Amino acid sequence: MIFIIDAIKQVLLWFIENFIKDVYEGIKRWVKNPKRKLYPIIIVVVLILTVFGVWYSPQVQKVTKVADVKWTMISFLGKETDKIILSQAPRRLKDKIYNMTKGRFIIEIDKKAQINIDTDSILEKVSNGDLDCAYNGIYYNKDKYRPLFFGSAIPFGLNTQQQNAWLYYKKDPNDELTFMQSIYQRSNLNLNVIPFPVAATGGQMGGWFKKEINSIKDFDGLVMRIPGLGAEVLTKFGVITDEDKRGQPLRSNEISGALADKTIDAAEWTGPHDDVKLGLNENTQYYYYPGWWEPGTTFDIQVNLKKWNKLPAHYQAIFKAACHETLMEILAEYDQKNGEQLKQIKQTKTVKPFSAEIMQEAEEETNKLLNFYAQGNPLFKEVYDEWRTFKTRIQGWHNTVNDYAYKREAE
Amino acid sequence: MIFIIDAIKQVLLWFIENFIKDVYEGIKRWVKNPKRKLYPIIIVVVLILTVFGVWYSPQVQKVTKVADVKWTMISFLGKETDKIILSQAPRRLKDKIYNMTKGRFIIEIDKKAQINIDTDSILEKVSNGDLDCAYNGIYYNKDKYRPLFFGSAIPFGLNTQQQNAWLYYKKDPNDELTFMQSIYQRSNLNLNVIPFPVAATGGQMGGWFKKEINSIKDFDGLVMRIPGLGAEVLTKFGVITDEDKRGQPLRSNEISGALADKTIDAAEWTGPHDDVKLGLNENTQYYYYPGWWEPGTTFDIQVNLKKWNKLPAHYQAIFKAACHETLMEILAEYDQKNGEQLKQIKQTKTVKPFSAEIMQEAEEETNKLLNFYAQGNPLFKEVYDEWRTFKTRIQGWHNTVNDYAYKREAE
Repeated sequence: MIFIIDAIKQVLLWFIENFIKDVYEGIKRWVKNPKRKLYPIIIVVVLILTVFGVWYSPQVQKVTKVADVKWTMISFLGKETDKIILSQAPRRLKDKIYNMTKGRFIIEIDKKAQINIDTDSILEKVSNGDLDCAYNGIYYNKDKYRPLFFGSAIPFGLNTQQQNAWLYYKKDPNDELTFMQSIYQRSNLNLNVIPFPVAATGGQMGGWFKKEINSIKDFDGLVMRIPGLGAEVLTKFGVITDEDKRGQPLRSNEISGALADKTIDAAEWTGPHDDVKLGLNENTQYYYYPGWWEPGTTFDIQVNLKKWNKLPAHYQAIFKAACHETLMEILAEYDQKNGEQLKQIKQTKTVKPFSAEIMQEAEEETNKLLNFYAQGNPLFKEVYDEWRTFKTRIQGWHNTVNDYAYKREAE
Repeated sequence: MIFIIDAIKQVLLWFIENFIKDVYEGIKRWVKNPKRKLYPIIIVVVLILTVFGVWYSPQVQKVTKVADVKWTMISFLGKETDKIILSQAPRRLKDKIYNMTKGRFIIEIDKKAQINIDTDSILEKVSNGDLDCAYNGIYYNKDKYRPLFFGSAIPFGLNTQQQNAWLYYKKDPNDELTFMQSIYQRSNLNLNVIPFPVAATGGQMGGWFKKEINSIKDFDGLVMRIPGLGAEVLTKFGVITDEDKRGQPLRSNEISGALADKTIDAAEWTGPHDDVKLGLNENTQYYYYPGWWEPGTTFDIQVNLKKWNKLPAHYQAIFKAACHETLMEILAEYDQKNGEQLKQIKQTKTVKPFSAEIMQEAEEETNKLLNFYAQGNPLFKEVYDEWRTFKTRIQGWHNTVNDYAYKREAE
């Protein structure tokens, strides 16, 4: 193609050269006889403007061009959670994409829209195109979306490193989509959404309790802030969730107050750093571990599929890499700050593991629950089967070379 | 500036409109009298070519513009390792950066230069600017570079997730450089290099042995392919390394042959997938775990600091994100394929843990060795102290919420 442009340039130069002569002659003739045609002068003006225009317009485009792509994003976490690490993912992602594209791919975070939208409604708004994309978790509400929970958190499931491997797992290495992304495309879910993992909490704590929990029967009648599949297991042991009691779940900034006025007896959020930022330690003494309901939770940016397909290939590549980078940064920050905070907490609070009995019964109830959902939902069963094979395989490998093989120091 | 362009366009349109009329009249006159000036026809040609040129040249520029930045990279892994996962990092990184910049930031992998260059020489070539960047490990040779080993692998050190957190750790969150990047900048190392983690093997296996290793004394006289700090510990137990025996280390494609002709009695590489690709299982029966000398090894792209500082900010952002993404992909692939391969191996080989005695004595020797280096090298001591605090803290946290808290299934 270059030679065509060169040829055009050559022709233009030849014209310019000859025209300058003709124009000079033309002007001389015109001065002698002003009634002659104005062609030569007009041609000079056109040529000067054209040459200037050809040279100048790409420079102007570079500097002043408005963004190529502008998306709006909302977050499932409200403004009140600004202090916790998890809430930083949207801003980090947006900044990275802005920097990598020199401001030509802009994602605006709609702060107003964050308030009081549950995760299913967000998913549906992304799907029908009301939103370009959203920072969202997928383990709260509708039965229809249960097969998607495997992309976020399953009790007694994968730890963080295993979950990352699972989220990038493709059944066939040549697939364009990861296995979990392909599940979102199933026709019976009726979703036009593609998810990209963007934040990981790492392993979570079991939460803050006003009283000691020594056995399963200590859960009976306990009012606890806890969502998702973990809540479903605990209700079998007699726990009443904040949602059961009030009709709607407590917002993150309400949990500390509910513990203070004894509306609830216990609450879980994520881990030491974020829990303390939300004040969960202020009116409780016992901090239990592990949060077996969420052993390695991940959160996604859900993107409207049509918007995704319209995105130029290099912006798709940038978006994906920025999501990976954000996830690793968030996880590294949790790993560092949770360790520091846990050490502080141990100085005044009782930090204890759930008993072997509790862990065993909870795991049994979890398996019953997962098998129950698999019986009623063929898509859930399909994902569950794939996930179980993956889990057994990767845990076999990790048990071999990871922590189990070492004795570890601990503070 | 846009309005200037618009004004030019308006003027051009006005000319075109009037010229078409004049040209039409001109052609009619020229047909009647072919001796008249050719101005009108020339003007038509110029205008058509100009309009086409103005529209077309930015499109052509986009596609054919030569790269803004072109770097050359070499890999510490030779061509003979093309089948293993670890060797894929340079190609993946290069492709990602190419895609994200639409081909305007090109990294060429110099395949010829890969052969027989040890990791220290590579580091020095990057430092003095002979190379723009290199894919490299940093745990082989010179005492001077020992403080940098903490960026790659330390026996009984951090597992993969902990190592990632360590590599992104900044002493002050406002620092531009990570702690390990800042160590590279110390004047006594005399290096102009900035490293970016780009590949992680995950936990490693302890390697392939011709005979059973039940206690420390079984190491005595054993000839083994093993590099780095792990080799230094094992030589205390009487192991003779391949390098000690031959004067230079075995190349990856020579290990299998050396096991076949009994030049060596044992060899370690990384884990099930890569070890089998290199044929380490072909003449050995015993596969031990864990590879306590490298519990979560990471490899870097080392970049010449001047080249890095000259890189436009958006390319720096793209480079960093592409490194993160490559590391996560490589790790996820190892986690998946090592699990699958380990299951295969167990069908015909004896897969065993090192005994508690071996693990304990090896850890004691490791601590002696690290303390010895800390005494002789203040920079080593500084990094070692920082790393130990980080390690104790993060392991305290991980012991709380990760695998230790669960019983695990395994195949």
